[in-house]
Amino acid sequence: MPAEIIDGKRIAAEIRAEVANRVSRLNMSPGLGTIIVGNRTDSATYVRMKHKACEECGLVSFHHPLPEDVEQKTVIELIQKLNADERVHGILVQLPLPKQCNEEQVLGAVDINKDVDGFHPVNIGRLAMKNREPMHVPCTPKGCIELLKRSNVQIHGKEAVILGRSNIVGLPISLLLLKNNATVTICHSGTPDMAAQTKKADIVVAAIGSAAMVKKDWIKPGAVLIDVGINSVPDETSKRGYRLVGDIDTKACEEVAGMITPVPGGVGPMTIAMLLQNCVTAAERTVES
Amino acid sequence: MPAEIIDGKRIAAEIRAEVANRVSRLNMSPGLGTIIVGNRTDSATYVRMKHKACEECGLVSFHHPLPEDVEQKTVIELIQKLNADERVHGILVQLPLPKQCNEEQVLGAVDINKDVDGFHPVNIGRLAMKNREPMHVPCTPKGCIELLKRSNVQIHGKEAVILGRSNIVGLPISLLLLKNNATVTICHSGTPDMAAQTKKADIVVAAIGSAAMVKKDWIKPGAVLIDVGINSVPDETSKRGYRLVGDIDTKACEEVAGMITPVPGGVGPMTIAMLLQNCVTAAERTVES
Repeated sequence: MPAEIIDGKRIAAEIRAEVANRVSRLNMSPGLGTIIVGNRTDSATYVRMKHKACEECGLVSFHHPLPEDVEQKTVIELIQKLNADERVHGILVQLPLPKQCNEEQVLGAVDINKDVDGFHPVNIGRLAMKNREPMHVPCTPKGCIELLKRSNVQIHGKEAVILGRSNIVGLPISLLLLKNNATVTICHSGTPDMAAQTKKADIVVAAIGSAAMVKKDWIKPGAVLIDVGINSVPDETSKRGYRLVGDIDTKACEEVAGMITPVPGGVGPMTIAMLLQNCVTAAERTVES
Repeated sequence: MPAEIIDGKRIAAEIRAEVANRVSRLNMSPGLGTIIVGNRTDSATYVRMKHKACEECGLVSFHHPLPEDVEQKTVIELIQKLNADERVHGILVQLPLPKQCNEEQVLGAVDINKDVDGFHPVNIGRLAMKNREPMHVPCTPKGCIELLKRSNVQIHGKEAVILGRSNIVGLPISLLLLKNNATVTICHSGTPDMAAQTKKADIVVAAIGSAAMVKKDWIKPGAVLIDVGINSVPDETSKRGYRLVGDIDTKACEEVAGMITPVPGGVGPMTIAMLLQNCVTAAERTVES
Protein backbone atom coordinates (compact mmCIF):
# COMPACT_ATOMS: atom_id res chain seq x y z
CA MET A 1 0.00 0.00 0.00
CA PRO A 2 1.60 3.28 -1.03
CA ALA A 3 2.00 6.08 1.50
CA GLU A 4 -0.83 8.46 2.24
CA ILE A 5 -0.06 11.86 0.79
CA ILE A 6 -0.23 14.74 3.29
CA ASP A 7 -1.89 17.46 1.30
CA GLY A 8 -0.26 20.68 2.48
CA LYS A 9 -2.20 22.75 0.01
CA ARG A 10 -5.52 21.59 1.41
CA ILE A 11 -4.43 21.96 5.04
CA ALA A 12 -2.96 25.42 4.37
CA ALA A 13 -6.24 26.46 2.73
CA GLU A 14 -8.11 25.23 5.80
CA ILE A 15 -5.86 27.34 8.02
CA ARG A 16 -6.21 30.40 5.82
CA ALA A 17 -9.99 30.05 6.11
CA GLU A 18 -9.62 29.90 9.90
CA VAL A 19 -7.43 33.01 9.81
CA ALA A 20 -9.94 34.89 7.64
CA ASN A 21 -12.66 33.91 10.08
CA ARG A 22 -10.64 35.16 13.07
CA VAL A 23 -9.90 38.41 11.24
CA SER A 24 -13.59 38.93 10.55
CA ARG A 25 -14.27 38.79 14.30
CA LEU A 26 -11.75 41.55 15.03
CA ASN A 27 -12.74 45.18 14.85
CA MET A 28 -9.62 45.98 12.88
CA SER A 29 -7.30 44.60 10.24
CA PRO A 30 -4.19 42.85 11.50
CA GLY A 31 -1.19 44.50 9.88
CA LEU A 32 2.02 42.92 8.61
CA GLY A 33 5.03 45.15 8.07
CA THR A 34 7.47 43.71 5.55
CA ILE A 35 11.03 44.80 4.94
CA ILE A 36 13.01 43.69 1.95
CA VAL A 37 16.55 44.82 1.31
CA GLY A 38 17.90 44.74 -2.25
CA ASN A 39 16.67 43.18 -5.46
CA ARG A 40 16.83 39.42 -5.10
CA THR A 41 14.08 38.03 -7.33
CA ASP A 42 13.42 35.05 -5.06
CA SER A 43 12.98 37.33 -2.04
CA ALA A 44 10.70 39.63 -4.02
CA THR A 45 8.56 36.66 -5.06
CA TYR A 46 8.25 35.37 -1.49
CA VAL A 47 7.24 38.77 -0.16
CA ARG A 48 4.73 39.25 -2.98
CA MET A 49 3.16 35.87 -2.15
CA LYS A 50 2.91 36.89 1.50
CA HIS A 51 1.22 40.19 0.61
CA LYS A 52 -1.26 38.41 -1.61
CA ALA A 53 -2.08 35.91 1.14
CA CYS A 54 -2.55 38.76 3.62
CA GLU A 55 -4.98 40.47 1.31
CA GLU A 56 -6.99 37.30 0.76
CA CYS A 57 -7.43 36.81 4.50
CA GLY A 58 -8.22 40.40 5.43
CA LEU A 59 -4.81 41.44 6.73
CA VAL A 60 -3.16 44.63 5.55
CA SER A 61 0.48 44.76 4.66
CA PHE A 62 2.83 47.69 4.84
CA HIS A 63 5.71 47.16 2.49
CA HIS A 64 9.11 48.74 2.98
CA PRO A 65 11.59 47.97 0.20
CA LEU A 66 15.09 49.23 0.92
CA PRO A 67 18.02 49.57 -1.49
CA GLU A 68 20.72 46.89 -1.59
CA ASP A 69 23.33 49.26 -0.14
CA VAL A 70 21.21 50.56 2.75
CA GLU A 71 23.04 51.08 6.03
CA GLN A 72 22.15 48.70 8.85
CA LYS A 73 21.29 51.71 11.01
CA THR A 74 18.50 52.64 8.59
CA VAL A 75 17.06 49.12 8.66
CA ILE A 76 17.04 49.11 12.45
CA GLU A 77 15.45 52.56 12.59
CA LEU A 78 12.71 51.33 10.29
CA ILE A 79 12.16 48.30 12.53
CA GLN A 80 11.89 50.60 15.55
CA LYS A 81 9.32 52.67 13.72
CA LEU A 82 7.31 49.53 12.94
CA ASN A 83 7.71 48.34 16.55
CA ALA A 84 5.99 51.57 17.62
CA ASP A 85 3.34 51.55 14.88
CA GLU A 86 0.00 50.35 16.27
CA ARG A 87 -1.28 49.39 12.84
CA VAL A 88 1.54 46.85 12.52
CA HIS A 89 1.08 43.62 14.50
CA GLY A 90 3.74 41.57 12.83
CA ILE A 91 7.11 42.45 11.32
CA LEU A 92 8.82 40.37 8.70
CA VAL A 93 12.39 41.00 7.60
CA GLN A 94 12.93 38.98 4.44
CA LEU A 95 16.19 37.03 4.57
CA PRO A 96 18.92 36.90 3.42
CA LEU A 97 20.21 40.40 4.13
CA PRO A 98 23.11 41.96 2.24
CA LYS A 99 26.43 41.66 3.97
CA GLN A 100 26.63 45.11 5.54
CA CYS A 101 23.59 44.13 7.64
CA ASN A 102 24.25 41.88 10.61
CA GLU A 103 21.35 39.42 10.68
CA GLU A 104 21.61 38.93 14.45
CA GLN A 105 21.44 42.66 15.19
CA VAL A 106 18.67 43.32 12.69
CA LEU A 107 16.42 40.45 13.81
CA GLY A 108 17.21 41.23 17.45
CA ALA A 109 15.70 44.70 16.96
CA VAL A 110 12.22 43.34 16.26
CA ASP A 111 9.81 43.61 19.21
CA ILE A 112 9.33 39.99 20.37
CA ASN A 113 5.57 40.51 20.34
CA LYS A 114 5.71 41.42 16.65
CA ASP A 115 8.31 38.79 15.77
CA VAL A 116 5.91 36.73 13.64
CA ASP A 117 8.85 34.90 12.07
CA GLY A 118 9.87 33.71 15.55
CA PHE A 119 13.57 34.30 14.87
CA HIS A 120 14.34 36.61 17.81
CA PRO A 121 16.78 34.87 20.19
CA VAL A 122 14.37 35.39 23.11
CA ASN A 123 11.67 33.55 21.17
CA ILE A 124 14.11 30.78 20.19
CA GLY A 125 15.35 30.60 23.80
CA ARG A 126 11.80 30.26 25.11
CA LEU A 127 11.05 27.66 22.45
CA ALA A 128 14.05 25.68 23.65
CA MET A 129 13.20 25.93 27.35
CA LYS A 130 10.78 23.84 29.35
CA ASN A 131 7.84 25.72 30.86
CA ARG A 132 8.47 28.73 28.64
CA GLU A 133 6.46 29.80 25.65
CA PRO A 134 7.72 31.97 22.80
CA MET A 135 5.50 34.82 21.61
CA HIS A 136 5.74 33.28 18.13
CA VAL A 137 7.07 30.03 16.68
CA PRO A 138 8.99 30.06 13.35
CA CYS A 139 6.56 29.48 10.48
CA THR A 140 7.98 26.52 8.57
CA PRO A 141 8.63 24.37 11.67
CA LYS A 142 5.23 25.31 13.06
CA GLY A 143 3.74 24.32 9.73
CA CYS A 144 5.38 20.89 9.93
CA ILE A 145 3.83 20.28 13.36
CA GLU A 146 0.44 21.40 12.03
CA LEU A 147 0.73 18.96 9.14
CA LEU A 148 1.43 16.14 11.62
CA LYS A 149 -1.36 17.10 13.99
CA ARG A 150 -3.98 17.65 11.33
CA SER A 151 -3.04 14.28 9.84
CA ASN A 152 -3.58 12.67 13.27
CA VAL A 153 0.04 11.61 13.61
CA GLN A 154 0.91 10.95 17.24
CA ILE A 155 4.17 12.67 18.21
CA HIS A 156 4.35 11.85 21.92
CA GLY A 157 6.74 8.94 22.55
CA LYS A 158 7.66 8.61 18.88
CA GLU A 159 11.16 8.62 17.52
CA ALA A 160 11.77 11.69 15.36
CA VAL A 161 14.91 12.15 13.28
CA ILE A 162 15.63 15.60 11.87
CA LEU A 163 18.08 16.09 9.03
CA GLY A 164 19.50 19.60 9.23
CA ARG A 165 20.01 22.07 12.06
CA SER A 166 19.42 25.47 10.47
CA ASN A 167 18.14 28.33 12.62
CA ILE A 168 15.11 28.63 10.37
CA VAL A 169 13.99 25.00 10.13
CA GLY A 170 16.10 22.14 11.51
CA LEU A 171 16.79 23.51 14.95
CA PRO A 172 13.33 24.92 15.78
CA ILE A 173 11.51 21.85 14.42
CA SER A 174 13.72 19.71 16.67
CA LEU A 175 12.78 21.84 19.66
CA LEU A 176 9.09 21.70 18.75
CA LEU A 177 9.11 17.92 18.38
CA LEU A 178 10.85 17.71 21.76
CA LYS A 179 8.17 19.96 23.30
CA ASN A 180 5.64 17.51 21.87
CA ASN A 181 7.46 14.68 23.69
CA ALA A 182 9.10 12.92 20.78
CA THR A 183 12.52 11.38 21.31
CA VAL A 184 14.51 13.65 19.03
CA THR A 185 17.69 12.96 17.06
CA ILE A 186 19.35 15.84 15.21
CA CYS A 187 21.55 14.92 12.23
CA HIS A 188 23.67 17.24 10.11
CA SER A 189 26.65 17.42 7.80
CA GLY A 190 28.81 16.01 10.59
CA THR A 191 26.69 12.86 10.96
CA PRO A 192 28.64 9.95 9.47
CA ASP A 193 25.69 7.63 8.70
CA MET A 194 22.36 9.41 8.31
CA ALA A 195 20.63 6.35 6.89
CA ALA A 196 21.31 4.44 10.12
CA GLN A 197 19.54 7.24 11.98
CA THR A 198 16.50 7.62 9.74
CA LYS A 199 15.95 3.86 9.60
CA LYS A 200 14.80 3.82 13.22
CA ALA A 201 12.59 6.89 12.92
CA ASP A 202 8.81 7.00 13.19
CA ILE A 203 8.93 10.58 11.91
CA VAL A 204 11.60 11.94 9.56
CA VAL A 205 11.93 15.66 8.86
CA ALA A 206 14.31 16.38 6.00
CA ALA A 207 15.57 19.96 5.90
CA ILE A 208 19.08 19.60 4.62
CA GLY A 209 18.86 21.10 1.12
CA SER A 210 20.07 18.14 -0.89
CA ALA A 211 17.89 16.92 -3.77
CA ALA A 212 16.27 13.49 -3.20
CA MET A 213 18.96 12.55 -0.70
CA VAL A 214 16.74 10.39 1.49
CA LYS A 215 16.37 7.03 -0.24
CA LYS A 216 13.83 4.26 0.09
CA ASP A 217 16.21 2.05 2.08
CA TRP A 218 16.69 4.82 4.65
CA ILE A 219 13.06 4.51 5.76
CA LYS A 220 11.34 2.31 8.32
CA PRO A 221 8.10 0.86 6.91
CA GLY A 222 5.16 3.01 7.92
CA ALA A 223 7.24 6.07 8.87
CA VAL A 224 5.87 9.58 8.41
CA LEU A 225 8.07 11.71 6.14
CA ILE A 226 8.04 15.51 6.18
CA ASP A 227 10.02 17.00 3.32
CA VAL A 228 11.08 20.62 3.85
CA GLY A 229 13.56 20.67 0.99
CA ILE A 230 12.99 22.67 -2.19
CA ASN A 231 15.76 22.01 -4.69
CA SER A 232 15.71 22.77 -8.37
CA VAL A 233 17.17 20.08 -10.60
CA PRO A 234 17.75 20.30 -14.37
CA ASP A 235 14.85 18.83 -16.33
CA GLU A 236 14.87 19.02 -20.13
CA THR A 237 11.27 17.82 -20.33
CA SER A 238 10.13 20.89 -18.42
CA LYS A 239 9.49 24.19 -20.16
CA ARG A 240 11.48 26.02 -17.50
CA GLY A 241 14.38 23.60 -17.94
CA TYR A 242 14.24 22.56 -14.30
CA ARG A 243 11.87 21.10 -11.76
CA LEU A 244 11.54 21.33 -7.99
CA VAL A 245 12.27 18.30 -5.84
CA GLY A 246 12.49 17.86 -2.09
CA ASP A 247 15.19 16.31 0.08
CA ILE A 248 13.37 12.98 -0.10
CA ASP A 249 13.27 10.61 -3.05
CA THR A 250 9.48 10.83 -2.94
CA LYS A 251 8.40 8.30 -5.57
CA ALA A 252 10.59 5.53 -4.16
CA CYS A 253 9.94 6.33 -0.50
CA GLU A 254 6.18 6.32 -1.06
CA GLU A 255 6.44 2.55 -1.37
CA VAL A 256 7.56 2.11 2.25
CA ALA A 257 6.42 5.21 4.15
CA GLY A 258 3.10 5.47 5.95
CA MET A 259 2.63 9.12 5.08
CA ILE A 260 4.62 11.63 3.07
CA THR A 261 4.47 15.29 2.12
CA PRO A 262 4.88 16.06 -1.59
CA VAL A 263 7.14 18.75 -3.04
CA PRO A 264 5.67 21.12 -4.08
CA GLY A 265 2.36 21.20 -2.22
CA GLY A 266 3.48 19.83 1.14
CA VAL A 267 5.31 21.97 3.66
CA GLY A 268 5.65 24.93 1.28
CA PRO A 269 2.10 26.30 1.49
CA MET A 270 2.15 25.94 5.27
CA THR A 271 4.84 28.58 5.82
CA ILE A 272 2.66 31.46 4.66
CA ALA A 273 -0.40 30.01 6.40
CA MET A 274 1.54 30.02 9.68
CA LEU A 275 2.75 33.56 9.09
CA LEU A 276 -0.87 34.67 8.73
CA GLN A 277 -1.79 32.70 11.86
CA ASN A 278 1.02 34.31 13.88
CA CYS A 279 -0.01 37.72 12.62
CA VAL A 280 -3.66 37.38 13.56
CA THR A 281 -2.65 35.98 16.96
CA ALA A 282 -0.46 39.06 17.53
CA ALA A 283 -3.40 41.30 16.60
CA GLU A 284 -5.79 39.40 18.88
CA ARG A 285 -3.38 39.81 21.78
CA THR A 286 -3.39 43.59 21.41
CA VAL A 287 -7.19 43.51 21.70
CA GLU A 288 -7.17 41.18 24.71
CA SER A 289 -4.58 43.12 26.65
CA MET B 1 39.86 -3.49 31.01
CA PRO B 2 37.79 -1.30 33.32
CA ALA B 3 36.81 2.19 32.24
CA GLU B 4 39.14 5.11 32.71
CA ILE B 5 37.83 7.36 35.49
CA ILE B 6 37.42 11.00 34.51
CA ASP B 7 38.65 12.85 37.57
CA GLY B 8 36.42 15.90 37.84
CA LYS B 9 38.06 16.99 41.05
CA ARG B 10 41.48 17.16 39.42
CA ILE B 11 40.19 18.89 36.28
CA ALA B 12 38.17 21.38 38.32
CA ALA B 13 41.28 22.17 40.41
CA GLU B 14 43.21 22.75 37.18
CA ILE B 15 40.53 25.18 36.01
CA ARG B 16 40.42 26.98 39.33
CA ALA B 17 44.18 27.48 39.11
CA GLU B 18 43.72 28.92 35.59
CA VAL B 19 41.02 31.23 36.93
CA ALA B 20 43.23 32.40 39.82
CA ASN B 21 45.99 33.07 37.32
CA ARG B 22 43.68 35.12 35.08
CA VAL B 23 42.43 37.06 38.11
CA SER B 24 46.00 37.88 39.12
CA ARG B 25 46.58 39.49 35.72
CA LEU B 26 43.57 41.80 36.14
CA ASN B 27 43.91 45.12 37.93
CA MET B 28 40.77 44.41 39.91
CA SER B 29 38.86 41.62 41.58
CA PRO B 30 36.03 40.08 39.57
CA GLY B 31 32.86 40.32 41.60
CA LEU B 32 30.03 37.81 41.92
CA GLY B 33 26.71 39.03 43.26
CA THR B 34 24.65 36.22 44.79
CA ILE B 35 20.99 36.31 45.68
CA ILE B 36 19.35 33.68 47.80
CA VAL B 37 15.69 33.80 48.72
CA GLY B 38 14.53 31.94 51.83
CA ASN B 39 16.14 29.40 54.13
CA ARG B 40 16.62 26.18 52.13
CA THR B 41 19.65 24.46 53.64
CA ASP B 42 20.74 22.93 50.33
CA SER B 43 20.66 26.33 48.60
CA ALA B 44 22.58 27.90 51.49
CA THR B 45 25.23 25.19 51.21
CA TYR B 46 25.61 25.66 47.45
CA VAL B 47 25.96 29.43 47.78
CA ARG B 48 28.46 29.06 50.63
CA MET B 49 30.56 26.71 48.48
CA LYS B 50 30.48 29.24 45.66
CA HIS B 51 31.60 32.06 47.95
CA LYS B 52 34.45 29.94 49.30
CA ALA B 53 35.57 29.09 45.75
CA CYS B 54 35.44 32.77 44.78
CA GLU B 55 37.63 33.69 47.71
CA GLU B 56 40.19 31.00 46.92
CA CYS B 57 40.56 32.28 43.36
CA GLY B 58 40.67 35.99 44.14
CA LEU B 59 37.08 36.88 43.26
CA VAL B 60 34.94 38.88 45.64
CA SER B 61 31.37 37.98 46.34
CA PHE B 62 28.55 40.23 47.36
CA HIS B 63 25.91 38.25 49.12
CA HIS B 64 22.27 39.26 49.23
CA PRO B 65 20.07 36.95 51.29
CA LEU B 66 16.38 37.78 51.06
CA PRO B 67 13.52 36.51 53.24
CA GLU B 68 11.35 33.61 52.06
CA ASP B 69 8.31 35.88 51.67
CA VAL B 70 10.06 38.67 49.73
CA GLU B 71 8.05 40.24 46.91
CA GLN B 72 9.23 39.53 43.36
CA LYS B 73 9.48 43.28 42.80
CA THR B 74 12.14 43.54 45.48
CA VAL B 75 14.17 40.70 43.94
CA ILE B 76 14.06 42.34 40.54
CA GLU B 77 15.00 45.74 41.99
CA LEU B 78 18.00 44.12 43.63
CA ILE B 79 18.98 42.52 40.31
CA GLN B 80 18.74 45.91 38.62
CA LYS B 81 20.99 47.38 41.29
CA LEU B 82 23.52 44.62 40.70
CA ASN B 83 23.20 45.08 36.92
CA ALA B 84 24.29 48.68 37.43
CA ASP B 85 27.01 47.94 40.00
CA GLU B 86 30.45 48.06 38.36
CA ARG B 87 32.01 45.92 41.08
CA VAL B 88 29.67 43.08 40.15
CA HIS B 89 30.61 41.16 36.98
CA GLY B 90 28.40 38.14 37.48
CA ILE B 91 25.00 37.70 39.07
CA LEU B 92 23.78 34.41 40.43
CA VAL B 93 20.21 33.88 41.56
CA GLN B 94 20.16 30.62 43.48
CA LEU B 95 17.28 28.40 42.39
CA PRO B 96 14.66 27.30 43.26
CA LEU B 97 12.78 30.48 44.08
CA PRO B 98 9.70 30.54 46.35
CA LYS B 99 6.42 30.41 44.49
CA GLN B 100 5.56 34.13 44.62
CA CYS B 101 8.63 34.72 42.42
CA ASN B 102 8.29 33.91 38.72
CA GLU B 103 11.55 32.27 37.72
CA GLU B 104 11.25 33.44 34.11
CA GLN B 105 10.72 37.08 35.07
CA VAL B 106 13.43 37.06 37.73
CA LEU B 107 16.10 35.40 35.57
CA GLY B 108 15.06 37.53 32.61
CA ALA B 109 15.94 40.65 34.61
CA VAL B 110 19.64 39.75 34.79
CA ASP B 111 21.87 41.71 32.36
CA ILE B 112 22.90 39.09 29.78
CA ASN B 113 26.53 40.19 30.19
CA LYS B 114 26.37 39.36 33.89
CA ASP B 115 24.29 36.19 33.41
CA VAL B 116 27.11 33.86 34.55
CA ASP B 117 24.58 31.05 35.03
CA GLY B 118 23.65 31.33 31.34
CA PHE B 119 19.93 30.92 32.05
CA HIS B 120 18.66 34.11 30.37
CA PRO B 121 16.48 33.18 27.37
CA VAL B 122 18.65 35.34 25.09
CA ASN B 123 21.70 33.33 26.13
CA ILE B 124 19.82 30.03 25.72
CA GLY B 125 18.49 31.23 22.34
CA ARG B 126 21.99 32.12 21.15
CA LEU B 127 23.28 28.80 22.45
CA ALA B 128 20.63 27.05 20.37
CA MET B 129 21.26 29.03 17.19
CA LYS B 130 23.93 28.49 14.59
CA ASN B 131 26.43 31.34 14.17
CA ARG B 132 25.37 32.90 17.45
CA GLU B 133 27.29 32.88 20.69
CA PRO B 134 25.79 33.35 24.14
CA MET B 135 27.53 35.72 26.55
CA HIS B 136 27.70 32.81 28.99
CA VAL B 137 27.01 29.08 28.84
CA PRO B 138 25.25 27.31 31.76
CA CYS B 139 27.85 25.98 34.19
CA THR B 140 27.05 22.28 34.56
CA PRO B 141 26.67 21.62 30.79
CA LYS B 142 29.80 23.65 30.11
CA GLY B 143 31.57 21.58 32.75
CA CYS B 144 30.53 18.35 30.99
CA ILE B 145 32.05 19.57 27.72
CA GLU B 146 35.26 20.59 29.53
CA LEU B 147 35.50 17.11 31.04
CA LEU B 148 35.21 15.59 27.57
CA LYS B 149 37.69 17.98 25.96
CA ARG B 150 40.27 17.75 28.72
CA SER B 151 39.99 13.96 28.53
CA ASN B 152 40.66 14.12 24.78
CA VAL B 153 37.26 12.71 23.86
CA GLN B 154 36.38 13.55 20.28
CA ILE B 155 32.84 14.93 20.02
CA HIS B 156 32.65 15.79 16.30
CA GLY B 157 30.81 13.08 14.37
CA LYS B 158 30.09 11.03 17.48
CA GLU B 159 26.70 9.83 18.56
CA ALA B 160 25.65 11.49 21.81
CA VAL B 161 22.57 10.43 23.74
CA ILE B 162 21.31 12.73 26.49
CA LEU B 163 18.93 11.50 29.15
CA GLY B 164 16.93 14.43 30.46
CA ARG B 165 15.88 17.77 28.97
CA SER B 166 15.92 20.16 31.92
CA ASN B 167 16.59 23.85 31.29
CA ILE B 168 19.61 23.67 33.56
CA VAL B 169 21.35 20.56 32.24
CA GLY B 170 19.73 18.27 29.67
CA LEU B 171 18.67 20.86 27.13
CA PRO B 172 21.80 23.07 27.15
CA ILE B 173 24.18 20.09 27.11
CA SER B 174 22.28 18.80 24.06
CA LEU B 175 22.72 22.15 22.34
CA LEU B 176 26.42 22.26 23.26
CA LEU B 177 27.07 18.76 21.94
CA LEU B 178 25.26 19.76 18.75
CA LYS B 179 27.43 22.90 18.44
CA ASN B 180 30.41 20.54 18.76
CA ASN B 181 29.05 18.51 15.82
CA ALA B 182 27.84 15.41 17.60
CA THR B 183 24.73 13.68 16.30
CA VAL B 184 22.46 14.35 19.26
CA THR B 185 19.55 12.31 20.60
CA ILE B 186 17.49 13.75 23.45
CA CYS B 187 15.60 11.24 25.63
CA HIS B 188 13.20 12.00 28.49
CA SER B 189 10.32 10.63 30.52
CA GLY B 190 8.32 10.22 27.28
CA THR B 191 10.95 7.98 25.67
CA PRO B 192 9.61 4.42 25.65
CA ASP B 193 12.94 2.56 25.47
CA MET B 194 15.93 4.55 26.72
CA ALA B 195 18.22 1.53 26.74
CA ALA B 196 17.77 1.13 22.98
CA GLN B 197 18.94 4.72 22.59
CA THR B 198 21.95 4.61 24.91
CA LYS B 199 23.15 1.31 23.41
CA LYS B 200 24.14 3.06 20.20
CA ALA B 201 25.79 6.05 21.90
CA ASP B 202 29.48 6.91 21.85
CA ILE B 203 28.78 9.50 24.55
CA VAL B 204 26.01 9.20 27.14
CA VAL B 205 25.07 12.12 29.37
CA ALA B 206 22.72 11.09 32.17
CA ALA B 207 20.85 13.97 33.78
CA ILE B 208 17.51 12.49 34.63
CA GLY B 209 17.60 12.34 38.45
CA SER B 210 17.01 8.63 38.91
CA ALA B 211 19.49 6.68 41.04
CA ALA B 212 21.65 4.20 39.12
CA MET B 213 19.06 3.99 36.34
CA VAL B 214 21.55 3.42 33.52
CA LYS B 215 22.57 -0.25 33.62
CA LYS B 216 25.54 -2.10 32.23
CA ASP B 217 23.52 -3.61 29.38
CA TRP B 218 22.46 -0.12 28.25
CA ILE B 219 26.03 0.71 27.28
CA LYS B 220 28.00 0.20 24.10
CA PRO B 221 31.51 -1.12 24.86
CA GLY B 222 33.98 1.73 25.00
CA ALA B 223 31.38 4.48 25.39
CA VAL B 224 32.11 7.63 27.39
CA LEU B 225 29.67 8.13 30.26
CA ILE B 226 29.02 11.50 31.89
CA ASP B 227 26.93 11.22 35.02
CA VAL B 228 25.24 14.46 36.08
CA GLY B 229 22.90 12.82 38.59
CA ILE B 230 23.25 13.30 42.33
CA ASN B 231 20.73 11.14 44.17
CA SER B 232 20.78 10.20 47.83
CA VAL B 233 19.90 6.58 48.59
CA PRO B 234 19.46 5.04 52.04
CA ASP B 235 22.65 3.38 53.30
CA GLU B 236 22.73 1.88 56.80
CA THR B 237 26.49 1.39 56.64
CA SER B 238 27.00 5.15 56.27
CA LYS B 239 27.10 7.41 59.32
CA ARG B 240 24.73 9.83 57.63
CA GLY B 241 22.32 7.00 56.84
CA TYR B 242 22.51 7.69 53.12
CA ARG B 243 25.00 7.94 50.30
CA LEU B 244 25.14 9.83 47.03
CA VAL B 245 24.85 7.98 43.73
CA GLY B 246 24.56 9.18 40.17
CA ASP B 247 22.08 8.29 37.44
CA ILE B 248 24.47 5.60 36.21
CA ASP B 249 25.09 2.24 37.86
CA THR B 250 28.78 3.14 38.00
CA LYS B 251 30.40 -0.05 39.30
CA ALA B 252 28.67 -2.26 36.74
CA CYS B 253 29.04 0.16 33.81
CA GLU B 254 32.76 0.55 34.48
CA GLU B 255 33.19 -2.94 33.09
CA VAL B 256 32.00 -1.95 29.61
CA ALA B 257 32.50 1.81 29.30
CA GLY B 258 35.65 3.41 27.93
CA MET B 259 35.52 6.36 30.32
CA ILE B 260 33.20 7.31 33.13
CA THR B 261 32.74 10.17 35.60
CA PRO B 262 32.36 9.15 39.25
CA VAL B 263 29.69 10.51 41.63
CA PRO B 264 30.78 12.38 43.64
CA GLY B 265 33.95 13.85 42.16
CA GLY B 266 32.96 13.91 38.50
CA VAL B 267 30.67 16.58 37.09
CA GLY B 268 29.91 18.06 40.53
CA PRO B 269 33.15 20.00 41.07
CA MET B 270 33.01 21.34 37.50
CA THR B 271 29.88 23.43 38.05
CA ILE B 272 31.55 25.84 40.45
CA ALA B 273 34.77 25.89 38.39
CA MET B 274 32.72 26.96 35.36
CA LEU B 275 30.93 29.63 37.39
CA LEU B 276 34.32 31.09 38.33
CA GLN B 277 35.44 30.86 34.71
CA ASN B 278 32.31 32.68 33.49
CA CYS B 279 32.77 35.32 36.15
CA VAL B 280 36.40 36.07 35.30
CA THR B 281 35.51 36.14 31.60
CA ALA B 282 32.82 38.73 32.34
CA ALA B 283 35.34 40.82 34.26
CA GLU B 284 37.95 40.55 31.50
CA ARG B 285 35.38 41.75 28.97
CA THR B 286 34.75 44.94 30.95
CA VAL B 287 38.48 45.65 30.80
CA GLU B 288 38.76 44.89 27.08
CA SER B 289 35.81 46.99 26.10
